[in-house]
Amino acid sequence: MTETFGSRLQVRLVEQGPLCVGVDPSAALLASWDRSDSVEGLEFFSLAVLEAVTGVVAVIKPQVAFFERFGSAGYAVLERLIRDAHDAELLVVADAKRGDFNVTNEGYAQAWLRDGSPLAVDAVTASPYLGVDALAPLFEAASASGRGVFVLAATSNQEGRSLQGVRGIENVRVEDMVLRRVAELNQRDEGLGSLGVVFGATREPPDFDLATLSGPYLVPGVGAQGADAKDVARLFERCAEGTVLVSVSRAILRAGPDRRGLRDAARRWRDELRTAL
Amino acid sequence: MTETFGSRLQVRLVEQGPLCVGVDPSAALLASWDRSDSVEGLEFFSLAVLEAVTGVVAVIKPQVAFFERFGSAGYAVLERLIRDAHDAELLVVADAKRGDFNVTNEGYAQAWLRDGSPLAVDAVTASPYLGVDALAPLFEAASASGRGVFVLAATSNQEGRSLQGVRGIENVRVEDMVLRRVAELNQRDEGLGSLGVVFGATREPPDFDLATLSGPYLVPGVGAQGADAKDVARLFERCAEGTVLVSVSRAILRAGPDRRGLRDAARRWRDELRTAL
Repeated sequence: MTETFGSRLQVRLVEQGPLCVGVDPSAALLASWDRSDSVEGLEFFSLAVLEAVTGVVAVIKPQVAFFERFGSAGYAVLERLIRDAHDAELLVVADAKRGDFNVTNEGYAQAWLRDGSPLAVDAVTASPYLGVDALAPLFEAASASGRGVFVLAATSNQEGRSLQGVRGIENVRVEDMVLRRVAELNQRDEGLGSLGVVFGATREPPDFDLATLSGPYLVPGVGAQGADAKDVARLFERCAEGTVLVSVSRAILRAGPDRRGLRDAARRWRDELRTAL
Repeated sequence: MTETFGSRLQVRLVEQGPLCVGVDPSAALLASWDRSDSVEGLEFFSLAVLEAVTGVVAVIKPQVAFFERFGSAGYAVLERLIRDAHDAELLVVADAKRGDFNVTNEGYAQAWLRDGSPLAVDAVTASPYLGVDALAPLFEAASASGRGVFVLAATSNQEGRSLQGVRGIENVRVEDMVLRRVAELNQRDEGLGSLGVVFGATREPPDFDLATLSGPYLVPGVGAQGADAKDVARLFERCAEGTVLVSVSRAILRAGPDRRGLRDAARRWRDELRTAL
């Protein structure tokens, strides 16, 4: 039986700490690195971040939007980053927020979660606007190959609350509906499941008991978006060690292009999060 | 002042009818065409559909997931399809369902809605799970360049209702919240605005008055998903001519690989929809 993504991730986070470094080659960050906003700039940026954080953290999270800006040429850089990261024994979470109805989600599953795909990663983020259950092809592909899916529940941005906080039948919020359903689906796996959720560190605790997900959390909102290590610790205080993956992007990436600056920033965040959690 | 996407689209739909042909090179459709599930198969499929529907309809809608299955090589095929479609004076709606928080949506706007991008299309579909207002960078890029965004409101799949139908404050459903907000944003444009919504032909009429969007509708769910031309006509009966773009994919694509078969199927659907609407 294939080991679940949740279990694989947990081992690595217990060893190397809960930090995941975002790889966000936005126009603004390339400018702050004094690099051109081009495919060459994109490649330089991505590989510099990879080199700086190898051995420091267990996971990187490329933000797919910033690679897609350059079309197929940008995707070729993303493929190289994924390959090089895997060679360096890093786990890769593609922040793609994909989501469609079930027939189309087969396509996304083949892209991100199938052996042999040039974009195959350890986990991908997915959006449940078409229903959590429409994501089934992604969930099945993940289970079958020891990969994972992080479903958006409560995102770190202010505007997300207008939709995710809507309370429906029996006063259950949309974000709690997502959490409940993912927790149910994780019951199919033994131990920690393949399915995680995205839950922002800027958010209030949900009604759902976060300790009962049986899967990992991907936690944005720390650093540039305003939350800190203590906010994460408070929100997830009852969750098991190695189940909370905290993503920090701009607060680390701004330290580039100097490799030592990037590495030191990643170390500081890793140690601070490890101490707090 | 740049003409809005809504106005450009309306002229074309009044001329050529409301049908938009989906370009969905899924593994299943490639198999039914007796073509290999490969980059070569993808390219053959895409260009055959384009050739068959040129002169028959105004708009094609490539489903990005099926190109992403082959990573950068698949995206290169998508880029060629977009270029060739524009050369053939077809409008292209990329069905990508992108959506993130505002900083990341800048990246998606640069990918899909910026002059000079290899993926630049006439309109892109977007998902509002992080809030309609988080999509602002897409809306701004669309307005600035005469392009459009179709925001998911009520999708055609059954699972979508579990989330989109949740009723929040003042008993307003999530799908109605999206419709209302997009209608408000369209007030910034004169005449038909840049912003449309996706509303499935399989759905019941919303509380929102569909005639008041001031923007176009992209309507899936017709054909393989079970709705027909009469369902579309009933749902949008009070909407102006040229504001409803009806997407049909599998029901036409199954007629391939024969070009004449594809063309005849597209013509039949176009004429049936034109008569009904």
